[in-house]
Amino acid sequence: MGLLDILFGKPLASGEERTEQLGTLSGVPIFGLDALGSAAYGPEAALTLLLPLGAVGIHYIVPISAAIIILLGIVYFSYRQTIAAYPGGGGSYIVASQNLGDRAGLLAGTALMIDYVLVVAVGIAAGVGALVSAVPVLQAHTLAICVLILFVICFVNLRGIRTTGILFMFPTYLFVACLLTTLSFGFFKALLAGWHPIPAVAAPAPGTAHQAAGAWLFLRSFASGCTAMTGVEAVSNGVQSFRDPKVKHARRTLSVIIFILVLFLAGIACLCRAYQIGATQPGEVGYQSVLSQLTAAVVGRSWFYYVTIASILMVLVLQANTAFADFPRVCRAIAQDRYLPYSFISRGRRLVYSHGIYVLTLLSAALLIAFRGVTDRLIPLFAVGAFLAFTLSQAGMVAHWKRTGGAHAKHSMLINGLGALATAITVLIVIVSKFLEGAWITLIAIPGILFLMRAVRRHYDRAGRELASPFPLPTNNLCPPFVVVPIDGWNKVTQKALRFALTLSPDVFAVQVQTSDEPQDLAKDWKTLVENPTQQARLPVPKLKVLSSPYRTVIHPTVEYIHRLERENPDRAIAVVIPQLVEQHWYERFLHRQRSELLTALLLLESEPRINIINVPWHLCT
Amino acid sequence: MGLLDILFGKPLASGEERTEQLGTLSGVPIFGLDALGSAAYGPEAALTLLLPLGAVGIHYIVPISAAIIILLGIVYFSYRQTIAAYPGGGGSYIVASQNLGDRAGLLAGTALMIDYVLVVAVGIAAGVGALVSAVPVLQAHTLAICVLILFVICFVNLRGIRTTGILFMFPTYLFVACLLTTLSFGFFKALLAGWHPIPAVAAPAPGTAHQAAGAWLFLRSFASGCTAMTGVEAVSNGVQSFRDPKVKHARRTLSVIIFILVLFLAGIACLCRAYQIGATQPGEVGYQSVLSQLTAAVVGRSWFYYVTIASILMVLVLQANTAFADFPRVCRAIAQDRYLPYSFISRGRRLVYSHGIYVLTLLSAALLIAFRGVTDRLIPLFAVGAFLAFTLSQAGMVAHWKRTGGAHAKHSMLINGLGALATAITVLIVIVSKFLEGAWITLIAIPGILFLMRAVRRHYDRAGRELASPFPLPTNNLCPPFVVVPIDGWNKVTQKALRFALTLSPDVFAVQVQTSDEPQDLAKDWKTLVENPTQQARLPVPKLKVLSSPYRTVIHPTVEYIHRLERENPDRAIAVVIPQLVEQHWYERFLHRQRSELLTALLLLESEPRINIINVPWHLCT
Repeated sequence: MGLLDILFGKPLASGEERTEQLGTLSGVPIFGLDALGSAAYGPEAALTLLLPLGAVGIHYIVPISAAIIILLGIVYFSYRQTIAAYPGGGGSYIVASQNLGDRAGLLAGTALMIDYVLVVAVGIAAGVGALVSAVPVLQAHTLAICVLILFVICFVNLRGIRTTGILFMFPTYLFVACLLTTLSFGFFKALLAGWHPIPAVAAPAPGTAHQAAGAWLFLRSFASGCTAMTGVEAVSNGVQSFRDPKVKHARRTLSVIIFILVLFLAGIACLCRAYQIGATQPGEVGYQSVLSQLTAAVVGRSWFYYVTIASILMVLVLQANTAFADFPRVCRAIAQDRYLPYSFISRGRRLVYSHGIYVLTLLSAALLIAFRGVTDRLIPLFAVGAFLAFTLSQAGMVAHWKRTGGAHAKHSMLINGLGALATAITVLIVIVSKFLEGAWITLIAIPGILFLMRAVRRHYDRAGRELASPFPLPTNNLCPPFVVVPIDGWNKVTQKALRFALTLSPDVFAVQVQTSDEPQDLAKDWKTLVENPTQQARLPVPKLKVLSSPYRTVIHPTVEYIHRLERENPDRAIAVVIPQLVEQHWYERFLHRQRSELLTALLLLESEPRINIINVPWHLCT
Repeated sequence: MGLLDILFGKPLASGEERTEQLGTLSGVPIFGLDALGSAAYGPEAALTLLLPLGAVGIHYIVPISAAIIILLGIVYFSYRQTIAAYPGGGGSYIVASQNLGDRAGLLAGTALMIDYVLVVAVGIAAGVGALVSAVPVLQAHTLAICVLILFVICFVNLRGIRTTGILFMFPTYLFVACLLTTLSFGFFKALLAGWHPIPAVAAPAPGTAHQAAGAWLFLRSFASGCTAMTGVEAVSNGVQSFRDPKVKHARRTLSVIIFILVLFLAGIACLCRAYQIGATQPGEVGYQSVLSQLTAAVVGRSWFYYVTIASILMVLVLQANTAFADFPRVCRAIAQDRYLPYSFISRGRRLVYSHGIYVLTLLSAALLIAFRGVTDRLIPLFAVGAFLAFTLSQAGMVAHWKRTGGAHAKHSMLINGLGALATAITVLIVIVSKFLEGAWITLIAIPGILFLMRAVRRHYDRAGRELASPFPLPTNNLCPPFVVVPIDGWNKVTQKALRFALTLSPDVFAVQVQTSDEPQDLAKDWKTLVENPTQQARLPVPKLKVLSSPYRTVIHPTVEYIHRLERENPDRAIAVVIPQLVEQHWYERFLHRQRSELLTALLLLESEPRINIINVPWHLCT
């Protein structure tokens, strides 16, 4: 355990949990990184789709961002209500399943799980995108850097949430400070220049597709830009992680996050138009992120530029951490309803749900590798899950208010209903406009995961019915088992096993398998070695059965003998005493035939309920 | 077992072994492929070293080949005597260990094992060399083809030796026929042309190192050429595989093999000189094997050329098969003296020693990959092992005749002594002249393997002493064990385990671990569920112990409790009854916590000799 302690910290007792809780100041980095970090790739995703329009396209970013901000406002008010109504943690899964039924809940849970995997993948990919904008020589190693960062995050999270809260506070506030400074400074510079500042980079050439700038392109750009909103549900998911009063702290945290995000989106859109900054071709040499261009345009490639890029890198990379806090929680909630394996319920040594962390790491690593760590290729998969969860959660809240009633029920229903409608429309826009570019993957994954979860639940239900027994212990038909001892020669291991067998039952059968490769036969010495001493001690006398094996396998004749004995004695349990040599060093295992392990495994896997296996170990001292 | 039957054939009973035996006609392919195939790379290896001399160097191949043929003759007569003296199989390992002691035997065994690995690697590499000579476009895929062929051979050998005998007979005799035809046809063509036929390929340019053609180059070329002799010991190793009379069949097989090999070596040397055929740069584009050049020179690139190359490819590739027949036999002989793990002794389903086949495949695959499948890079490693084994075997025979005496003992000693002397000198030449080019690898591997084998023997000796017991079964201190039943809730699995525990001993302890994640507590219901019914049935009453676990692990408190119970009762054995859920499908294992497996493993690995483990399985029907 020494190594585990050093790596992951000492184990935390269940009672130490209260020390792991959050206030507003520490809540913003934990639950806000996702939403705030989105500002670094949302506007860029929208601008990338406007690339074919060239310089003209950049103008459209302002109305698109305005639409996104309006949507964000609707969602904000909707989630404020969820936090109040579900102080124990109102994730989309819980809200949807409690108010719309199990099916809707499972759908929401699935959508969230997919969303979190993509938060991790996109966050890391965009962060590394910022890094290679500042240090172009690293561009060739994009994927390797992405995977390395992923594993570091996984490791930090296995140590527990409080450590991560402290670790992530500084970069978040640095990022907010840097970006707000850049935006305000840029704003004043533009104002002084009569709102027509000279572009710091060469303006992009006019595009070749002016005529295509219709509603379709606008919709697709909006769908991509909506990824800027992902993560705003995080606070409502984790209300139970806040200090008391939980609801107040959670709501205040959400307000701070949304306020900053709106400033970011509005500022980026206006300055991009003012400074004529568009996207560059993603995944290609010469790629530069929009925020990198913007910062360079405002402050030049000064030390401030590098600090800003560093804070963007840190925040985008650590945004993945939001998912690492929430994904295991969603898995746990689903597992508690027995739609996922039990192991997602247990907390590990450091009070974190280790299994959820492992699964999230594996899935997002797969995504990063499949899409070579390029943000723009991941974006089309992204928004479906997030907005589907939004919709179900808010539709669930409508049902909640309808059910609970109360003074402000009508008013609350209206707010949540508006949220549900707006996000539902967005889901449709995203699916239709991004279908071929990757949304289809999400649309296939959702029913696949739903099917698996239902299968898990079915298995648990059936197993539960099979095993359940409210009755007291049945005491009929209890008599000692027939004990079978497979032996391969006369030595201390055999003797120990035989002695143990004699303490268990009066019916002991020793079995030896004779092959042409191992011709030893105990029959001729059995009388002196075993029968005489047991008779003298008035003990039951073990019988010896020597089996021959034409095919030289020792295991199968033994198993056959045991099965025959079982068939011939339908009223008795069988206990197979397996002498087992335990080596001191793992490499010594190659030196001894692992027959006892093989026999144990074979007997356990055969569905014979009356056969029990007894391992009598002999620990080699040499 | 269905799939195994289709892949490897039905299992063979030990009694079916006689049908697997060989005559002269079938013995030549099995035991002669190695020796005969050597003709395809031995002369070429000698010629490659003469490359710097250019056209002049080719003339030296005749005296070098003559020296090799003389050595071959000495070794032939020496091995004829070994076959007669050891009709049960007189491999170098057996002869050396019986006559020169264990150390010499082990050294011989090690040398042989290394030799066989190289036979496989060199055979396949040279075969693929012939292939890429005829089809140059395949040269880039040399290594991949080598590895593919290796796995096919491994597979064929896992099916058993008789199948392989038939499979390999046709290509061997085709190869002999093709090569003898080419050589005689070439000989007559040269004779008709007044022994100065026009070279079919452009004569190589005169070399740049005429002055270096001294004794050193001659020795190195001889050392490389000696690889043509590897494999002649195969027959003496496998005398027991022949039909009765074994000695006669084995000797006749050896004579046929040596006779053909001498014809090959002499013919190739003379025709290379006559047709001015030298080696080409190995491992480079434009490489062409010597036999390919020779055949093309004699018959042109006709259909006969391609048939010959195909037969060379097949024979060289299948030469590896000799090693696949012999390597497992050597391992078995060494394992019977307990210097290698027991598993090399047992024969598998098809009467072959499967473990030896697996190990040989792995090692030769490693060599092929490390040397990129280029024959010339493997040659320097090759001859050391083979000639070391020759020397030890023949020195052993000298000691044998000295010990047994008899009418012709003096005469036999002389022949074997001459063999030992000649091969010992060759070993020295090979080591000195090839040290830097790779012989050093063999010289490091030999002591390494010897060390491992001694360590294995030491372990077996110590374990044997620890476990040995010639005494009858001790019958003192036999009383029922304390039975511990770890339970996690009240269900049919728990009930079954408790019921089984009650049949074993009057002292049954149920243990439940309570964690904050699993707060169920059986204590309040224990009286109605267990105590009352057992009291009414006049059975021993199981006691319940509820343990709390602040760190949420269920396993460790259980293990600690068991150890405490053991310490407090130093005179009693402990039996831990572990209820175990057995799932119907492997993937269902992910759905249940594998606590019983973990607990079993932990308890077995802790060195507590009085703790025994009882698995009571519950086979899920769902």
